[in-house]
Amino acid sequence: MLAISKKGLRMPESPIRKLVPYAEQAVEKGVKVYQLNIGQPDLPTPKVVLDAVRNIDLKILEYSHSAGFLDYRQALARYYRNNGVEISTSDLIVTTGGSEALSFTMGTIADEGDEIIIPEPFYANYNGFSTAYGVKVVPVTSHLEYNFALPPIEDFESLITEKTRAILICNPGNPTGYLYTREELEKLKDLVIKHDLYLIADEVYREFTYDDQNHISILEFEELEEHAIVIDSVSKRYSMCGARIGCLISRNKEVIHTAMKFAQARLSPPTIEQIAAKAAMDTPSSYFKEVATEYNKRRNVLVNGLNAIEGVECPMPKGAFYCVAKLPVDNADAFARWMLAEFSHEGATVMVAPAEGFYASPNKGLQYVRLAYVLEVEVLEKCLIILEKALQAYPGKL
Amino acid sequence: MLAISKKGLRMPESPIRKLVPYAEQAVEKGVKVYQLNIGQPDLPTPKVVLDAVRNIDLKILEYSHSAGFLDYRQALARYYRNNGVEISTSDLIVTTGGSEALSFTMGTIADEGDEIIIPEPFYANYNGFSTAYGVKVVPVTSHLEYNFALPPIEDFESLITEKTRAILICNPGNPTGYLYTREELEKLKDLVIKHDLYLIADEVYREFTYDDQNHISILEFEELEEHAIVIDSVSKRYSMCGARIGCLISRNKEVIHTAMKFAQARLSPPTIEQIAAKAAMDTPSSYFKEVATEYNKRRNVLVNGLNAIEGVECPMPKGAFYCVAKLPVDNADAFARWMLAEFSHEGATVMVAPAEGFYASPNKGLQYVRLAYVLEVEVLEKCLIILEKALQAYPGKL
Repeated sequence: MLAISKKGLRMPESPIRKLVPYAEQAVEKGVKVYQLNIGQPDLPTPKVVLDAVRNIDLKILEYSHSAGFLDYRQALARYYRNNGVEISTSDLIVTTGGSEALSFTMGTIADEGDEIIIPEPFYANYNGFSTAYGVKVVPVTSHLEYNFALPPIEDFESLITEKTRAILICNPGNPTGYLYTREELEKLKDLVIKHDLYLIADEVYREFTYDDQNHISILEFEELEEHAIVIDSVSKRYSMCGARIGCLISRNKEVIHTAMKFAQARLSPPTIEQIAAKAAMDTPSSYFKEVATEYNKRRNVLVNGLNAIEGVECPMPKGAFYCVAKLPVDNADAFARWMLAEFSHEGATVMVAPAEGFYASPNKGLQYVRLAYVLEVEVLEKCLIILEKALQAYPGKL
Repeated sequence: MLAISKKGLRMPESPIRKLVPYAEQAVEKGVKVYQLNIGQPDLPTPKVVLDAVRNIDLKILEYSHSAGFLDYRQALARYYRNNGVEISTSDLIVTTGGSEALSFTMGTIADEGDEIIIPEPFYANYNGFSTAYGVKVVPVTSHLEYNFALPPIEDFESLITEKTRAILICNPGNPTGYLYTREELEKLKDLVIKHDLYLIADEVYREFTYDDQNHISILEFEELEEHAIVIDSVSKRYSMCGARIGCLISRNKEVIHTAMKFAQARLSPPTIEQIAAKAAMDTPSSYFKEVATEYNKRRNVLVNGLNAIEGVECPMPKGAFYCVAKLPVDNADAFARWMLAEFSHEGATVMVAPAEGFYASPNKGLQYVRLAYVLEVEVLEKCLIILEKALQAYPGKL
């Protein structure tokens, strides 16, 4: 029968994008829509990156090695070494975005019906990659009341079955901004060793930490040599999301060998963008200082501002550039739609991401939204006013 | 247990790359290796493409739309219209290479255990994408003796089961260079309509046809509106394999809607390379004329030269830039390895792709190799001499 696959029917729609039609209607009506719903930073891509593209010296735009250009892999190995993690060029595969690194990981470690445990709320596209590979996401709920810290390790252990293949964390977390402590990572480490599971860490926001907190990579734990698989990407680090350059890192030779077969099937990651990503390694440290200062300011303005609104509750994130806030509404999804479809304040409104789509458990996060502080402070201040006015006017306010 | 997935273990290694270690050893010994094993053209990327990259005017390297930049999709729609195929921007999704278009197609139409019928020999990576999605490739053998023409349609029909989801063809064919006739496509059309199957056509070599033959797209058949899914790519057309820009085309709305969910999960195709691909649309027609003339010359030199070698048999391909030749050897894989490891003529040798890896049936194509005529005529002439000398010296000659 000419039909869509069951897998295709199950594939989730992106929760971040499902409000787009409402936003487009708002724009058509002449309403200015401030987008706090997506993680597209407004900060400029470092000049070294764009210069490398402009000075490109190629006659033929050829395939690269399936694992990525060797000189880029060498530069990546140096980057991790400078971050205290000894990695060789054969421990990593350059991928088309962190997305592809996640896909390769799923294919490498899990078969149809296998399970991966993920603390929720989590990056919604984990659902997509899991569904594409027939892998079942088993959620462990973290709580806003505890700042979205790692749930008790017993909660993880109680969910482990013979089908469990891995625990997947995002650190610092999207959507929560939570930064795992060494103690939490130690607990995860002991658990995956005890049960022979992989520990997958999506560390794409590693450079974004605040309040003098440092990101700790799972690659720092020697005992995880066989267990650790890290997903990384240049997207956020250098504000070059459109480059689609990421990487998969593991010291487990079998994992890399197998992921390489997936990599060979798709031939290679994009050539020009790899050249751009290699150039990004020469971004001056002043760039990162400015970025860190800017995000820290934005975070403080947004999160403090949110908590100052009556009935809103938002833990202070220690990393990434997102926060999850609880709103005094019956249903955050309906509220978000209403803000776009029926509300504006002084000709403007705000687009947020309802957090429901970041949960695998049904009926969780119904009052929560994710906000990305990827706009400048003046705009965030306007957004806070709009949000406050909207909450006052919203018919479904609690 | 900390183990690799069954799927990962089953993933095939690239047959085109498995001789690479032998080639590297030859190079270390000072032997010049002419690579006729891969489809990396030596022709320059059009100047308009590289100029577009060098003139890039971006401050932030942002994500594009998940379906690709609208202006690029509009340009693609115009390209197909100029080629006699009416396509709207909503009938296509820009992908990261033809590879990703194939992946999305597999995920959209097939579940674990479903079957896709493919005439063999076929592009080896079809095995990879199928394995990644748990889809079973059911081969129908085409024969060198019949120029690798479409096998009798009864052979296809006899293989259709309730698990069959699609027939996949590559037209013009990699590795055979075979160009399907209208009559053959009509037969496939009737069959897929009769049995409610998708017809997937990989048309990435559409611009490469010879002897005044024209490529016929499956999109030209109105009755296939719901059945046709086309895989395309700029890689070969504009000698920009490293760009990783392809597309998936279908007028079946459900197919596009579902493939879009896969596209959203991976966010977007590469930004800079999309800009480059859009610029490629302005490649002057003189470029294509030169390219066609050049490949035609190479094809004639290589294929006539092959047939002039005692015991070698090679049908004249009508499209793409590959041919499959039968060699008078016991095992072409062993011969190809031997040429790299133990043979050289005047300090040089030739690397070919053993054709065994292009078959899904066991023990087929054991005497065959694929050769890509992607090097200039003078080099091809040298390669022919090397090949002739090698066949004379080879201990396993029949």
